[in-house]
Amino acid sequence: MRQSQLFAPTLRETPAEAEIVSHRLMLRAGLVRQASAGIYSWLPLGKRVLAKIERIVREEQNAAGAQEILMPTIQSADLWRKSGRYDAYGAEMLRIRDRQDRDLLYGPTNEEQVTEIFRNGVASYRDLPLNLYHIQWKFRDEIRPRFGVMRGREFLMKDAYSFDLGYAGARVAYNKMFIAYLKTFSRMGLQAIPMAADTGPIGGDLSHEFIVLADTGESAVFCHADYLDRDPRAETPETAEALQAAVDSWTALYAATDEKHDAWPDAVAADKRLSARGIEVGHIFYFGTKYADPMDAAVQTSDGGRTTVHMGSYGIGVSRLVGAVIEAHHDDAGCVWPIPVAPFDAHILNLRPGDAAVDGVCASLYDQLKTAGLDPLLDDRGERAGAKFADADLIGLPWRATVGPKSAAEGKVELRTRADAATETLGVEAAVDRIRAAWVAA
Amino acid sequence: MRQSQLFAPTLRETPAEAEIVSHRLMLRAGLVRQASAGIYSWLPLGKRVLAKIERIVREEQNAAGAQEILMPTIQSADLWRKSGRYDAYGAEMLRIRDRQDRDLLYGPTNEEQVTEIFRNGVASYRDLPLNLYHIQWKFRDEIRPRFGVMRGREFLMKDAYSFDLGYAGARVAYNKMFIAYLKTFSRMGLQAIPMAADTGPIGGDLSHEFIVLADTGESAVFCHADYLDRDPRAETPETAEALQAAVDSWTALYAATDEKHDAWPDAVAADKRLSARGIEVGHIFYFGTKYADPMDAAVQTSDGGRTTVHMGSYGIGVSRLVGAVIEAHHDDAGCVWPIPVAPFDAHILNLRPGDAAVDGVCASLYDQLKTAGLDPLLDDRGERAGAKFADADLIGLPWRATVGPKSAAEGKVELRTRADAATETLGVEAAVDRIRAAWVAA
Repeated sequence: MRQSQLFAPTLRETPAEAEIVSHRLMLRAGLVRQASAGIYSWLPLGKRVLAKIERIVREEQNAAGAQEILMPTIQSADLWRKSGRYDAYGAEMLRIRDRQDRDLLYGPTNEEQVTEIFRNGVASYRDLPLNLYHIQWKFRDEIRPRFGVMRGREFLMKDAYSFDLGYAGARVAYNKMFIAYLKTFSRMGLQAIPMAADTGPIGGDLSHEFIVLADTGESAVFCHADYLDRDPRAETPETAEALQAAVDSWTALYAATDEKHDAWPDAVAADKRLSARGIEVGHIFYFGTKYADPMDAAVQTSDGGRTTVHMGSYGIGVSRLVGAVIEAHHDDAGCVWPIPVAPFDAHILNLRPGDAAVDGVCASLYDQLKTAGLDPLLDDRGERAGAKFADADLIGLPWRATVGPKSAAEGKVELRTRADAATETLGVEAAVDRIRAAWVAA
Repeated sequence: MRQSQLFAPTLRETPAEAEIVSHRLMLRAGLVRQASAGIYSWLPLGKRVLAKIERIVREEQNAAGAQEILMPTIQSADLWRKSGRYDAYGAEMLRIRDRQDRDLLYGPTNEEQVTEIFRNGVASYRDLPLNLYHIQWKFRDEIRPRFGVMRGREFLMKDAYSFDLGYAGARVAYNKMFIAYLKTFSRMGLQAIPMAADTGPIGGDLSHEFIVLADTGESAVFCHADYLDRDPRAETPETAEALQAAVDSWTALYAATDEKHDAWPDAVAADKRLSARGIEVGHIFYFGTKYADPMDAAVQTSDGGRTTVHMGSYGIGVSRLVGAVIEAHHDDAGCVWPIPVAPFDAHILNLRPGDAAVDGVCASLYDQLKTAGLDPLLDDRGERAGAKFADADLIGLPWRATVGPKSAAEGKVELRTRADAATETLGVEAAVDRIRAAWVAA
């Protein structure tokens, strides 16, 4: 796309209300604008990142055998009265009354609703196991929304719900999501550490949070340094036993949030004690029959009996992840997007729009990147070179290809990676090959 | 995907509350379930159709030069007080009060919100023309929601908003959307007729509805029969003049909704008078400075002055289209999906699961379709053949490939089109070629 046509209102100044770096950069790079307290509009650059994150989440959920559905944002209060959570949930639930005086609410989560769908659609043990997920906007009326999309009131979440005959099956479902989560975050360039967690208002007796490491993260975390060397993409367990072994190996190392960490256990050698900052991006729960019992979600068993199903729920903060990726990947000049979630794949800077040779090299690079299946952004604006470099650093695409009169005369571009500023002067085809190869590898 | 694992709870009986065929079939084929009055959950088959429709809408919006953003569902009442619509909108607006006693609302449309984004992000005539769209859930608190997703309370809509320097530019933006709409509906297998419309609560002085023809449509329409022979995909106007000529040619023929139709004009020959039923699926408006004036959306002009922008808005009922496609494409046995929006591309019926030869032919066909980039559904359930045929007709995928012991012995499948029941017996590779060719052509 041509930048002269892109709606990306960047800001030179740092907005005063933004306390953390991801919030500052999302406003400055024109990814989002606040609509009202804790509620954001996503502008074209932000929407692109959000869509790429959503797609990775969807692909990994599908690969793990979960099926995509879509439940509405507005729910009936009666559903929550059945589970007993309507009165218990507290002031964070946005309660609504419609024109017929019926009590509604903007869903903060969907255990009740999905259990109702299950109850009406599944009758037999033969239909299990089942895992249903959706990616939908939620609302939690935070008393003090802040940190931009990291703690907003309206936020996009992936939530999955598993249904199984008993604990053993439910544990397989839990473990599948556990490994899928590690892969999901890894694909976005995030190092995620699973940490045993309290179950809070969801309930249940088995739960893990997934915390990604970022120097500017919201909370202190403590974990074994060997986590840094592990790649979840190597995990491809085929059986329930192999799956359990994989999960066990990922939970064998010490890892704890601030609230849970007291002193380092002796088992962690002094040189393996990693104190870091982290951001919660996922949370998974096994809660047995907590919702199935009051909502009567049961199936016929193979011997003609009837049994209540065991459930788990599995959340990923999709809009929060946009902030989390920036917290983990930025520098003083701006965003440093990992290739798989960058809003465009490469930034072509035309330093002299109107100069036939420069325009020609830019157009050739642009067209060849398009043909290679990539999505370049061409800065064809009539701005000074300095402003173009600053905006390119701020937006932070993985590659910057600069074309000026001198390089154009040789049919070359100056290719620079955003992450480590490695710079080379290359012909157009070689530049396309370089960018394409890195994109395929990511 | 294997049907034994698919969550698609079909119903044998026709639900009593469903008054129209799309509502009946969406419930019976397991596409949706009602969550509460006028609010639906989309199950896997329905979600797939919705995603395909959304994708076509997105591709045509992008091709027309509109940029995707995403505005939140919850808006501040203050924004609507600025435009004067907060009190005027009436009881269909879902009004909400948050824990801080601020007045919010669930957006029924987004003119105010997008105008605010424009005002804060665009300062100069050089940034025009601009067209921003999003695909987001809306809520209208209908007093009597009915007809399933055709007149729900929570519904998915694409709404675009154009910003231009004056009438001439705004008319180009309007015309681009006009042609993009015809192409969008055509790609879904729908014959859309543009009809001059009243502007209603959106306001303005130029407006067209897009009505798709369906025998079971909600309202009577009257139009020139030559509309049936026109293909909008042939329209590729490159200039503003060519664009205007294309729009003029699509509005030159007589077409009117029930409210506007009085008597047939003499200009329409007796044998060209088409009385039909239709469903509104899109509506476009030019409303000049109606919102830009009160909300102060102005830009600097080339001579250093300041001018209020001219706006238009352009809606497509994305979730409604799922119902509209069914109204236009069904028979007594079920849905008859056009290829581009079918939930899966082909239905493979294994008539004897467990028989090695039958399983082998089914697996071969399944794998080869996957390799060809297609998405088959394999009925591997232990049901009677009659139940499988009935479910296949009900779900209505474009192709049905039946494999029984006799055809498997010859390595063949019985391939049948859902639309016209044309049946052939073919080898696996020939069947894949046939399905693939039809898919590419669509």
